[in-house]
Amino acid sequence: MTAGRFITLEGGEGSGKSTQARLLAETLRAQGLDVVLTREPGGTPGAEAIRGLLVTGDDARWTAWSEALLMTAARVDHVVRVIRPALARGATVICDRYIDSTRAYQGAGRGLPDEALIALHEMSVGLWPDLTLVLLLDEAEGLGRAAARGTAEARFEAIGSDFHARVQGFFASLPTSDPQRCRAIPASGSIDMVAARIMAAL
Amino acid sequence: MTAGRFITLEGGEGSGKSTQARLLAETLRAQGLDVVLTREPGGTPGAEAIRGLLVTGDDARWTAWSEALLMTAARVDHVVRVIRPALARGATVICDRYIDSTRAYQGAGRGLPDEALIALHEMSVGLWPDLTLVLLLDEAEGLGRAAARGTAEARFEAIGSDFHARVQGFFASLPTSDPQRCRAIPASGSIDMVAARIMAAL
Repeated sequence: MTAGRFITLEGGEGSGKSTQARLLAETLRAQGLDVVLTREPGGTPGAEAIRGLLVTGDDARWTAWSEALLMTAARVDHVVRVIRPALARGATVICDRYIDSTRAYQGAGRGLPDEALIALHEMSVGLWPDLTLVLLLDEAEGLGRAAARGTAEARFEAIGSDFHARVQGFFASLPTSDPQRCRAIPASGSIDMVAARIMAAL
Repeated sequence: MTAGRFITLEGGEGSGKSTQARLLAETLRAQGLDVVLTREPGGTPGAEAIRGLLVTGDDARWTAWSEALLMTAARVDHVVRVIRPALARGATVICDRYIDSTRAYQGAGRGLPDEALIALHEMSVGLWPDLTLVLLLDEAEGLGRAAARGTAEARFEAIGSDFHARVQGFFASLPTSDPQRCRAIPASGSIDMVAARIMAAL
């Protein structure tokens, strides 16, 4: 069914995912590939409307399950309307965050069982990436970067460092727990150095 | 855990659920019970915000899975913040629509597998009603009633009569498929007659 290649970038706050996703898209386009660059939560009008519910309000606004279900509802919309059609026509899809962010933040971070989140993904979304690049940065360094830019979303930022340590631990474990799909990319050093590591991983 | 009794009312458009839920609450309150009357989708500020996404826009706005996940995200919020606390203090909770409406509309109506919707409910919500009153009306009669009142929501209303026949068929099957929990209440006749049938079923 899926003729194109589906690549996701994952990692904690400030790991440089969005910059690297954009650079990767530019590099592959320069090679003549049809590339769709997108992000989660969001990527379609419906998913952006759901994102609006998720990123506003205080930390207690949503329980962990409501948050995971809203994320997944947005993901279904994104996959059905953007990702699957692009893959079907042979495009390379590069997505900034996907299922592994739900497993990291709502799973490891907020305590939902990983098996349940995987079952939820299988029943409703049913599409796994061909390749996941996991950008790994020392946790404190990542949060420092995000805070310096002022871009990390307030709700997720305010939760505390235990939470972020669990999230970071999950991302760090992915290349080992799912070595077929996931590659660890050290995210320290210059933007060009990280980009070179990503091209080597491809 | 749940000291109080959790009663849901289910049925198609125009079956008189909301009226009967209100009458039942009044009758039980007159008997001295602590009663919480609520409805889905909605019942909390978060769930009402999600309801706002669901009831606006055209029929193609959401895929069946996005719709089911949004409904379930709202249900989690409602259960955690309203229903479970009320049951814990010993209240009787009467809810106008609940999980069986998701099984009817997104399951039987829009084609999602019932087993998946049950698994989704178990993993994220985990609370079943003690008693479900299924108000059964001839399908055309119910839609005629709803249209006459002008209250049925535009998106669900516009979908066509095959859809409504499948929804109605699911509701009609519930008292047989889950006889421990579900009671069929014929919904034709006067409001008082239906109310008397409900009191008899209790």
